[in-house]
Amino acid sequence: MSDSSFRAIGACTFLSPIPAVMLSCRGTEPGYDRDNLITIAWAGVVNSAPPMVSVSIQPKRHSHKQIRQSGAFCLNLIGRSLCEATDFCGVKSGRDIDKFAATGLHARAVEGFPAPALEEAPAFLCCRVKRVISLGSHDMFLSEVEQVYVKDALFREDGSIDFGRAELVAYAHGEYYPLQDAPMGFFGYSVAGEDALRRRLGKGKA
Amino acid sequence: MSDSSFRAIGACTFLSPIPAVMLSCRGTEPGYDRDNLITIAWAGVVNSAPPMVSVSIQPKRHSHKQIRQSGAFCLNLIGRSLCEATDFCGVKSGRDIDKFAATGLHARAVEGFPAPALEEAPAFLCCRVKRVISLGSHDMFLSEVEQVYVKDALFREDGSIDFGRAELVAYAHGEYYPLQDAPMGFFGYSVAGEDALRRRLGKGKA
Repeated sequence: MSDSSFRAIGACTFLSPIPAVMLSCRGTEPGYDRDNLITIAWAGVVNSAPPMVSVSIQPKRHSHKQIRQSGAFCLNLIGRSLCEATDFCGVKSGRDIDKFAATGLHARAVEGFPAPALEEAPAFLCCRVKRVISLGSHDMFLSEVEQVYVKDALFREDGSIDFGRAELVAYAHGEYYPLQDAPMGFFGYSVAGEDALRRRLGKGKA
Repeated sequence: MSDSSFRAIGACTFLSPIPAVMLSCRGTEPGYDRDNLITIAWAGVVNSAPPMVSVSIQPKRHSHKQIRQSGAFCLNLIGRSLCEATDFCGVKSGRDIDKFAATGLHARAVEGFPAPALEEAPAFLCCRVKRVISLGSHDMFLSEVEQVYVKDALFREDGSIDFGRAELVAYAHGEYYPLQDAPMGFFGYSVAGEDALRRRLGKGKA
């Protein structure tokens, strides 16, 4: 295989696929206390116990100040029907417009939590900021997940979650790619027995 | 919309989709100096300038010690044909087996860089560790991207990259989902003119 060839394209943020999610937040100070929605691709899981995520935001952003004030945000997963609104919320600033109104989307109050969620999301994570680390262009908000809410429609009768119904969208190198509806496998499928493969994928090993 | 209902499922690492990538590394001390491949879903972009990614790994892992020794790793993107090997490398330890040999995959030397890459990957990022932060179950390696290599076959004649050809796979809630071949849009498409839409998506606004 040593003759396959690669081209060096320079140092860049090429990791793919990455999340395309919408972060919802609200500041506490005048001028910052309107519910806001921003698009985040610089996000990831960073710890399992406790469950933690990171999101990176430029300090000049309106949302950056809002999250600094409230110390909290919701991360809303997005499906295909939200893709255009997601892009729109990534190019417009909440300093200038009410992005919920502009997109026709709705803020959902979460009891006991100082940030709104996105009503139309298939699921959302309530996150509390634990630490902010400046990395250069962006500040990284290391945050603990306090609670996760998943839309009723995603649950199968047996209580398990059919993530195909969320019709998730990923981000890759500046483009939004929908996920296919059916998974190729589950964690551990490469070493699973035929029974588990049939039960979880509806088929034997390929 | 306030009547749509959500179920609380508890605090967990539900962020989706997230990357499914293979990290390749090699330690410098006896017992750790064999090329290794591990699967990472706890990864994300954290900064644009300089380009930085984070990967989170449990301290008990063989790869954790290897990366601590070399201070470097490659992040290899994975396509559908690598999905089963990716899963396998996520459940087996490089302490026990040679994962390149076990999967039939090949390590690729990168000139001047102390970690191998995965020859079969559609693209890989050469990353240098800048800081390690312990978060509980995992240590987060904040790392700078030094160079990115992309396989020739992904380039169009005009030099742009057709990421559909990489047939990337995302991870979501314990399952591997292939991305669809065509993007729904590009960053900024929601506010782009008809010309840009036609040129980049081959169609007008939906």
